Amino acid sequence: MTDFHMKAETLTEALPWIKRTWGRTVVIKYGGSAMTDPVLREHVASDIVLMKLVGINPVIVHGGGPEITSFMQRLDMEVKFHEGLRVTTPEAMDVVKMVLVGKVNKELVAEINTHGSLAVGLAGDDANLIRATQRSKELGRVGDVTDIDITVVTNLIADGFIPVIATVAVGDDGGSFNINADHVAGRIADELDADKVIFLTDVDGLYADFDDKHSLISSLSIEQAEDMIAYDKLAGGMVPKVAACVHALRGGVRRAHILNGTVPHALLLEVYTEEGVGTMITPAEEPWLAEEVM
Amino acid sequence: MTDFHMKAETLTEALPWIKRTWGRTVVIKYGGSAMTDPVLREHVASDIVLMKLVGINPVIVHGGGPEITSFMQRLDMEVKFHEGLRVTTPEAMDVVKMVLVGKVNKELVAEINTHGSLAVGLAGDDANLIRATQRSKELGRVGDVTDIDITVVTNLIADGFIPVIATVAVGDDGGSFNINADHVAGRIADELDADKVIFLTDVDGLYADFDDKHSLISSLSIEQAEDMIAYDKLAGGMVPKVAACVHALRGGVRRAHILNGTVPHALLLEVYTEEGVGTMITPAEEPWLAEEVM
Amino acid sequence: MTDFHMKAETLTEALPWIKRTWGRTVVIKYGGSAMTDPVLREHVASDIVLMKLVGINPVIVHGGGPEITSFMQRLDMEVKFHEGLRVTTPEAMDVVKMVLVGKVNKELVAEINTHGSLAVGLAGDDANLIRATQRSKELGRVGDVTDIDITVVTNLIADGFIPVIATVAVGDDGGSFNINADHVAGRIADELDADKVIFLTDVDGLYADFDDKHSLISSLSIEQAEDMIAYDKLAGGMVPKVAACVHALRGGVRRAHILNGTVPHALLLEVYTEEGVGTMITPAEEPWLAEEVM
Amino acid sequence: MTDFHMKAETLTEALPWIKRTWGRTVVIKYGGSAMTDPVLREHVASDIVLMKLVGINPVIVHGGGPEITSFMQRLDMEVKFHEGLRVTTPEAMDVVKMVLVGKVNKELVAEINTHGSLAVGLAGDDANLIRATQRSKELGRVGDVTDIDITVVTNLIADGFIPVIATVAVGDDGGSFNINADHVAGRIADELDADKVIFLTDVDGLYADFDDKHSLISSLSIEQAEDMIAYDKLAGGMVPKVAACVHALRGGVRRAHILNGTVPHALLLEVYTEEGVGTMITPAEEPWLAEEVM
Amino acid sequence: MTDFHMKAETLTEALPWIKRTWGRTVVIKYGGSAMTDPVLREHVASDIVLMKLVGINPVIVHGGGPEITSFMQRLDMEVKFHEGLRVTTPEAMDVVKMVLVGKVNKELVAEINTHGSLAVGLAGDDANLIRATQRSKELGRVGDVTDIDITVVTNLIADGFIPVIATVAVGDDGGSFNINADHVAGRIADELDADKVIFLTDVDGLYADFDDKHSLISSLSIEQAEDMIAYDKLAGGMVPKVAACVHALRGGVRRAHILNGTVPHALLLEVYTEEGVGTMITPAEEPWLAEEVM
Amino acid sequence: MTDFHMKAETLTEALPWIKRTWGRTVVIKYGGSAMTDPVLREHVASDIVLMKLVGINPVIVHGGGPEITSFMQRLDMEVKFHEGLRVTTPEAMDVVKMVLVGKVNKELVAEINTHGSLAVGLAGDDANLIRATQRSKELGRVGDVTDIDITVVTNLIADGFIPVIATVAVGDDGGSFNINADHVAGRIADELDADKVIFLTDVDGLYADFDDKHSLISSLSIEQAEDMIAYDKLAGGMVPKVAACVHALRGGVRRAHILNGTVPHALLLEVYTEEGVGTMITPAEEPWLAEEVM
Repeated sequence: MTDFHMKAETLTEALPWIKRTWGRTVVIKYGGSAMTDPVLREHVASDIVLMKLVGINPVIVHGGGPEITSFMQRLDMEVKFHEGLRVTTPEAMDVVKMVLVGKVNKELVAEINTHGSLAVGLAGDDANLIRATQRSKELGRVGDVTDIDITVVTNLIADGFIPVIATVAVGDDGGSFNINADHVAGRIADELDADKVIFLTDVDGLYADFDDKHSLISSLSIEQAEDMIAYDKLAGGMVPKVAACVHALRGGVRRAHILNGTVPHALLLEVYTEEGVGTMITPAEEPWLAEEVM
Repeated sequence: MTDFHMKAETLTEALPWIKRTWGRTVVIKYGGSAMTDPVLREHVASDIVLMKLVGINPVIVHGGGPEITSFMQRLDMEVKFHEGLRVTTPEAMDVVKMVLVGKVNKELVAEINTHGSLAVGLAGDDANLIRATQRSKELGRVGDVTDIDITVVTNLIADGFIPVIATVAVGDDGGSFNINADHVAGRIADELDADKVIFLTDVDGLYADFDDKHSLISSLSIEQAEDMIAYDKLAGGMVPKVAACVHALRGGVRRAHILNGTVPHALLLEVYTEEGVGTMITPAEEPWLAEEVM
Repeated sequence: MTDFHMKAETLTEALPWIKRTWGRTVVIKYGGSAMTDPVLREHVASDIVLMKLVGINPVIVHGGGPEITSFMQRLDMEVKFHEGLRVTTPEAMDVVKMVLVGKVNKELVAEINTHGSLAVGLAGDDANLIRATQRSKELGRVGDVTDIDITVVTNLIADGFIPVIATVAVGDDGGSFNINADHVAGRIADELDADKVIFLTDVDGLYADFDDKHSLISSLSIEQAEDMIAYDKLAGGMVPKVAACVHALRGGVRRAHILNGTVPHALLLEVYTEEGVGTMITPAEEPWLAEEVM
Repeated sequence: MTDFHMKAETLTEALPWIKRTWGRTVVIKYGGSAMTDPVLREHVASDIVLMKLVGINPVIVHGGGPEITSFMQRLDMEVKFHEGLRVTTPEAMDVVKMVLVGKVNKELVAEINTHGSLAVGLAGDDANLIRATQRSKELGRVGDVTDIDITVVTNLIADGFIPVIATVAVGDDGGSFNINADHVAGRIADELDADKVIFLTDVDGLYADFDDKHSLISSLSIEQAEDMIAYDKLAGGMVPKVAACVHALRGGVRRAHILNGTVPHALLLEVYTEEGVGTMITPAEEPWLAEEVM
Repeated sequence: MTDFHMKAETLTEALPWIKRTWGRTVVIKYGGSAMTDPVLREHVASDIVLMKLVGINPVIVHGGGPEITSFMQRLDMEVKFHEGLRVTTPEAMDVVKMVLVGKVNKELVAEINTHGSLAVGLAGDDANLIRATQRSKELGRVGDVTDIDITVVTNLIADGFIPVIATVAVGDDGGSFNINADHVAGRIADELDADKVIFLTDVDGLYADFDDKHSLISSLSIEQAEDMIAYDKLAGGMVPKVAACVHALRGGVRRAHILNGTVPHALLLEVYTEEGVGTMITPAEEPWLAEEVM
Repeated sequence: MTDFHMKAETLTEALPWIKRTWGRTVVIKYGGSAMTDPVLREHVASDIVLMKLVGINPVIVHGGGPEITSFMQRLDMEVKFHEGLRVTTPEAMDVVKMVLVGKVNKELVAEINTHGSLAVGLAGDDANLIRATQRSKELGRVGDVTDIDITVVTNLIADGFIPVIATVAVGDDGGSFNINADHVAGRIADELDADKVIFLTDVDGLYADFDDKHSLISSLSIEQAEDMIAYDKLAGGMVPKVAACVHALRGGVRRAHILNGTVPHALLLEVYTEEGVGTMITPAEEPWLAEEVM
């Protein structure tokens, strides 16, 4: 069998998965090495474009952790965390926003657009997409999301574009707020009534025992996920992701996934193969028929 | 590399071809073994569905040669050909129509629709799609196409369906006519302003010397194709196909192809690989830019 | 009064009926002599076109009884009935489908289209319009309808066409099924939320006593109709028609009629004259106002 | 043959004419006895509604001669004509407008709307439909049309209504002008690119010799019509009608007719019988095919 | 500060009010001196156009009291009132209609259309907008509204026009009826689900004690308004206006206002200044948020 | 006259200007003090929102000069200009983009959105809006615009938003380019077929003699503007602005303006007062009628 024929065979095998995912909305929280490593970023971009062209509506949500820290250090600004959250002075907020919106967002948009005029970047200010209020005096410009106005996102999807959302919020005091990107991804999936929300990370998923690399959980229910948070069974960085999964599923999203973004084509593997990869969290009850779940 | 990853790799390789073919219209003349062999038919059906799902608008045109002959023999009707054309008595015309519209067309429609409610069968009578007039008294109900009313086809495409067209015509005398399916495929590609017309046959394409299987021509111009007809360089069955290619290209279709339908996934290989397969005929002048051709 | 003026007078008299029927959907089960006699068929076709042009949306459903039997006899196939149903071997199913879809359907489509590009033929395979499952081993390819997907029918109506539906079903086992056309007409009227379903037959309607030609019933309620089935008061061929009327009325159709298709212009007389012709069955309760019923 | 069957036969005979006129626009200049006689007005109204329901888009244009004179006399106003035109003082203009817009127009609108919510009255002021400038000091508020803004008419047609237009114009000096209704009918037919303009009068049409009632002309060319004006062969009231016919035909209207509105159903007879009634004027050249003319 | 800059300042101050009123529907009952005085009429017209251009959809409803009386007197017709209502003989009805529809309506339409092709006049006959039945034998052609068919009004708004409605009704006996314009304004506001209904009168609003000009009420509840009717606290002409306000508010309209139309730009002041002018009546309960009220 | 009445008077005076500008597209190049001074920025934002609400479609284009320099200095990066252009190393390009897209753009978007969810920020990367190629090795990442893909801008206008465009370009080498904002404003006005392009600066307009503050030119032709460039009559910063005006006018834009953004409400004064402010440049020929120019 020639190489050409193998290619046609594989395309044909993809047929049932393409049928199953046609017209679905998938929110992808993009983060970790998959965002910082140029080669991985190129892979993720082409996976997203492929999803778009075969009928899925992907929406990208991203933060920008490591780049913010390095840029603050170049400016001799103090980098301080309090209970895992970046203490954000007004000056730091300016840097957070410039790096997230002016650098990280635009790099991903440009990467996707090497394949065509598809991606359009958005921040919380655009059409008042994300509004927030201050969490506490100590944390400064760290905010809690109060409102999502999804209009501009659904307009851009209807216009044929891929929205790429940088997670800064417009504040009730006129300033900007630094917000948790995982939480925003869950909220946006909920508002869009998405079929799926996917968190791209640097680990393979959730572990029953996170010291044992053989204890990867391939699937768990929303209740089991809530128990893992309650009984402190999760690695630190996983808590907001799992909480966001729970929020999205409670809001009507069908499936939530935590994937290792350093695995080449993890997105395609999750969406277009039966076994999937990483950890899947499923809602408590499923009033929809099995074949309606992608 | 696992099998999963190979699949993702291949999908990713398909990305540039999917981008190139997005939104294009392709008319496929379906015939030969690809139509009579159930396994090949299943392959062709899944290739067509895959094309539809990744953004191409396929339109299928078919005849039904061998099945007509066998059914006429079951009815003890005389099977007679005159200059390559079936002498068609009114009784034979009834059989032609029943086999084409009631059997061959519906089998292909049903095969495609195992993948979803996609295909809708049409014959020349439907919305007066194909009109014809009698060619000669000797040939009986053999007709020459006088008019194509493409409205119902464009309506069904706009409604999201795959039209599957059986080539019988409604006659100016109220009866039906047996017409050449290759010719109809060329005419419909022309009326639809299609990007591509593809003829599925049992041979690999055109040969410079049809006794020499090593002389396959991968590409030739419309003028060279006309010369091959004029200087009698073609195998008999190829003449109407090449003439239909020339008609379609003169009418504005960008590319015409003759492919071997017994090669698994010949359609996908032609549309989604760079080298293509079979023989391609190109128009004399190309006012469009290279990147606009799929 | 000249002939011209009589014509204008009559057109004017039609005005209130045209107003009453504007925009309504009427499902017509076409069968019996009205289908086999060429002169009657011509009348029915022109009646249907006239209904279309004055604002009604007609949908035609037909079977093909006598032609199937005569064709099977030409092929020396055994014609056998069991409890009023044709025992249908797989070979017989091929003949049923070819005659229904390739001959009867196309003859009616062509007849209508002599008046303009209006009719489009459909069979159960097209866009998976009618699905069925096997009734019993003994009857072979005789099926019970499990699902109607009305999408392609409503699309064609919206596109300005008259759908003409041949009653063969696509089966859950991949093959085709022979199904009862009366039942399908009732189901399709129900799915379309039609205003009226009309059964064209060879008799004048239902009789209180079917041996007494003076006992024709001009109107009865759905309960009375059910009683006639229950107490065995109906001629054999009438049972599925009356059962289909009951099904349609229970599903929300406003009026069901059984007419004699051999009466010239029976359709027009029913729709455009006050007294109507044949037998009308009315629903138990009528939440709509009198003027809303056509 | 029963009365019912005769009705169905006649409806069926109307079929080819209904097909021919489907979707066409017809401007009807309504005047003379057909407007003043209540029985004739009722006939004209039902003819117009019937045309609408069988697919024609009628647009009505009317003046209001005799009622204006009688109302002016009730007010003891002087009624004076100069070269066939009503000398219109500003006070007389008020009366012209009140009678035309507030009485004649509304009576016709109400008459049509006894058949359904179809007619909407318009005057030249509405959406600046008709603009005019003063013809001469002597004639006072008599105007010449300078501009037609057809927007509100096409909007109302698209909304499914029958526009009924009273011929008063809004003036360049802010006041109203009394304008010739025949001329406006021709201009509106031209702006609408109508298929037909029909003038309802009290005579049977044009006469070769207007003293000889046997010399009625059934058809003449635009050049012959112009000659009749030039060589003074027309009865006085006919000149503006024939001039308006010529204007409309030069602007692309296909056919112009002068009919006797006192003949019952003259409109239906003209539109739906082959021979027509009255006098037809045809354009010099006919680039369209014969079958495209209604 | 130059005059130019003052203008820009004022426009800028209008910004929050323009935002608040964007896309709202306002029904304006136009009457009193604002209708009879040419200078006031010009102001009202330009206010209405300005409202249209900054995003409000105004709908105008008017009667025509004083002009009808003066015209009847010119015709030596007896002018008689019974319990505040004009005794309307059939002859008087003709005059009412001619003055309202052919004079008052067209003058307002023309005044608005000096600013562009915006206004389209309507009477109750048009598309059967207002239907009525006789109130009593004594009052003759005085009617009570039985039905409003708002279709033509919403169509004209959607087409970008300003509907201007003369309040005569089409009767169940085929004739016309003289109806109360205040009542019609309330009914139309209700049918349109308007945000606001405004009554332009000659007084500043409602007075707690109508002999004391210092007792103007700036705001009252629907219950207080009903009490004022019940306990006979209103000047005679105010009763139908307040009753119409109550009807509109009960039907879902958000705010009802009674304004002095002789105050220049009373409409703009009410709609675009915070304090408003005149008397406002508010519904009993307000399920909508404060910011949603204009 | 009370303050309220003055407000209504001024709104009414705005009526003719609002009519004249309804539905027009205006491109505003935003720069200078109007961008850096928070109070001026607030004024410009409310002027833009007011324009949007009264029917104009504003599109904002901005650069970010002074903020870039100050941020580079904070990072101890060398700030160097060559022939008036910033020498842009790849590291400087990162800063340019972060400041422009992540700070300046978002500040303006947020300022506008305090009035409602109206503004959406865009950079050249979004949907490949602006493409550029390197100008010269010496200048580093300074680019010349090669292509504008206006699709996302027209989509956002059609969706009801105000596009706010940061002038960085996506490069043919995959990187970003620093481009001239004045030039981009002219190009975008051309691509949008805008009615007007306005350059907000810190000076009052063009001067015949730029040392003489009394020589302000209120209007000049495109040829005169070209002469001023050719004969070196312009202050340095004005050259790209005047060249962009010329480009836009040659491309079909009707009017180009250079205004002093430090004058309060300069935008409103230009658009809504007859005399305008600043300097207007007009095209050589004006095939459109005077009233069509805003």
